Amino acid sequence: MPFKTKALQKTAPDQPFRVTEIERRDPRAHDVVIAIKAAGICHSDIHTTRDEWGKAPFPLTVGHEIAGIVEAVGDAVTKHAVGDRVGVGCLVDSCGECEQCLADEEQDCLRGNVGTYASKDRDGSITQGGYAEHVVVDERFVLGIPEGIELDVAAPLLCAGITLYSPIDRWGVGEGKAVAVIGLGGLGHMGVQIAAAKGADVTVLSRSLAKADLAAELGASRTIATGEEDWDAELRGTFDVILNTVSADLDLDRYLRLLKPHGAMVNVGLPPDAQSLGLGSLISGGKVLAGSNIGGIRQTQEMLDFCAQHGIGAVIERIGVADADAAYDRVVDGDVKFRFVIDTATFADEEVVPST
Amino acid sequence: MPFKTKALQKTAPDQPFRVTEIERRDPRAHDVVIAIKAAGICHSDIHTTRDEWGKAPFPLTVGHEIAGIVEAVGDAVTKHAVGDRVGVGCLVDSCGECEQCLADEEQDCLRGNVGTYASKDRDGSITQGGYAEHVVVDERFVLGIPEGIELDVAAPLLCAGITLYSPIDRWGVGEGKAVAVIGLGGLGHMGVQIAAAKGADVTVLSRSLAKADLAAELGASRTIATGEEDWDAELRGTFDVILNTVSADLDLDRYLRLLKPHGAMVNVGLPPDAQSLGLGSLISGGKVLAGSNIGGIRQTQEMLDFCAQHGIGAVIERIGVADADAAYDRVVDGDVKFRFVIDTATFADEEVVPST
Repeated sequence: MPFKTKALQKTAPDQPFRVTEIERRDPRAHDVVIAIKAAGICHSDIHTTRDEWGKAPFPLTVGHEIAGIVEAVGDAVTKHAVGDRVGVGCLVDSCGECEQCLADEEQDCLRGNVGTYASKDRDGSITQGGYAEHVVVDERFVLGIPEGIELDVAAPLLCAGITLYSPIDRWGVGEGKAVAVIGLGGLGHMGVQIAAAKGADVTVLSRSLAKADLAAELGASRTIATGEEDWDAELRGTFDVILNTVSADLDLDRYLRLLKPHGAMVNVGLPPDAQSLGLGSLISGGKVLAGSNIGGIRQTQEMLDFCAQHGIGAVIERIGVADADAAYDRVVDGDVKFRFVIDTATFADEEVVPST
Repeated sequence: MPFKTKALQKTAPDQPFRVTEIERRDPRAHDVVIAIKAAGICHSDIHTTRDEWGKAPFPLTVGHEIAGIVEAVGDAVTKHAVGDRVGVGCLVDSCGECEQCLADEEQDCLRGNVGTYASKDRDGSITQGGYAEHVVVDERFVLGIPEGIELDVAAPLLCAGITLYSPIDRWGVGEGKAVAVIGLGGLGHMGVQIAAAKGADVTVLSRSLAKADLAAELGASRTIATGEEDWDAELRGTFDVILNTVSADLDLDRYLRLLKPHGAMVNVGLPPDAQSLGLGSLISGGKVLAGSNIGGIRQTQEMLDFCAQHGIGAVIERIGVADADAAYDRVVDGDVKFRFVIDTATFADEEVVPST
């Protein structure tokens, strides 16, 4: 039977959140029913609900950094059991048969995967995300959250964590490597922790030194203030990898000069406008400019296991469902260290507005 | 003793070539004296002598695609012997001690390598290139040309060949991979042959179909005319690697769409102006935009051995020293299939102008 669950819902870009009840599907044989305990607020949620990435399908519940406990499982489920600590990230389905899915790269499914919210599901409905009390997800897309990470600090790993872990893994960040992380926000603070745990020497490139102490606590060996003139004078040719987590315009040629020969600058932040690039910045030294987009399910589990093993979680600020609108404004202002996570227990305090 | 050798010399960007005598250094213990038989004309030679890459040090002899026979060796030379078939490419010296040199990446020597021409040598003199009867080069930078390749078709391998072989090797072009080569000129025609010999399926992307038959002979399975509207409609998401050999402005975002997820577009052609790039073109599908600049000495030897083994040489038009100016104009017009090579035996027919 389909069932109702309390959720935070937006009805339009300029409307505040409201607490309502949304419907979750009748669990199928391979489905897992999750009682959500924590839901991270990702900047993507804000872009989506403010129509900054195109018109969103309202009414909409967002959230793709989900952590909770398995409450029920379908008959055919083998991967998870009632009571398991689990998480769901940006994806809830993919074809499972294409070259990319078979290579555990479901984020690149050639038939188009199903996003956790605002995406057309197999049955034609629009997916609804994790700012809710429950969610129903196919077991293939449900991750195990190992003991040793609290659910609230694990939730942001499902998006921010894998977004950094994947390029760190692909581009060989580790022992003996010098890595720069541009921007110390929700993404950057995960990059610093994971790269440092991999054994790399981590430099944070931030507009000012305001977060230098925090960067050091997370494992960075230094912070450089890019707001200073000539900030890069001593840095040219010194990094194996640069991880760009900011979405602002960037002088790509200037940053590429900081790479060693054959070094790679990997972008996970997406500036809205096209950037200027001199191809000579890549040719000289055989350098790489790459992008990265979350990661596959196998790698996401690997990331969770790695984080548990190294005691890594997101640094979070816990909020109640009533604080979500204010939290959005603070994220846009860069006023959060480093991720807001909604405590879904606070749904209990809220009156339900009838759903439209 | 230093000695004189006949050479083609430019005295200014707007002056024709003249045949004169230039001085080669007294061979040192590790030097090899090479009687040059063939010298390829690379577009870099033209850019340099026309001051398109900054003011060149005139009078100047260019040429960095050199093939010949060892005529004498210094006392300490072990790598080559008199009578050996040898080649010299873009580099004639490097520090030999830095991280890059130790990794056989002399093209990225951290102390700056010495180019074959127009470069400041260890002794402070300006290096003079291969449009000449002789050259003296340290044995470390002298390659062996295997039996089975004629010297004239081998000469262009020393620059054009390695320029394509290196990215083909690094980015895994081979059996089961679909590769596009943008531009079928001196560089592109080497890329097609090497990629096809590696077992890849090769598509040539050229403005028109004018060279489609030639492309097929070189090993391409098809040519697509990029001058047609919607030329890319069927190509999106189909290539593992794109090798860009042209130096014109390029719609990078459009070409990046042709890559499979995790695919790489590698640039060896250098457009003079900065290009526009939407970083979303890299993030979606975790794609790579890279550059590549010739290759190290170990890899250059590997390339020569590979080409000999697969019967690959440059497709050339042989010219005499008197034809060099006309050849330059034809290269600029794209009117050569695919590389001019100067037959240095024709120096014998030329009167020597006293050197300045």
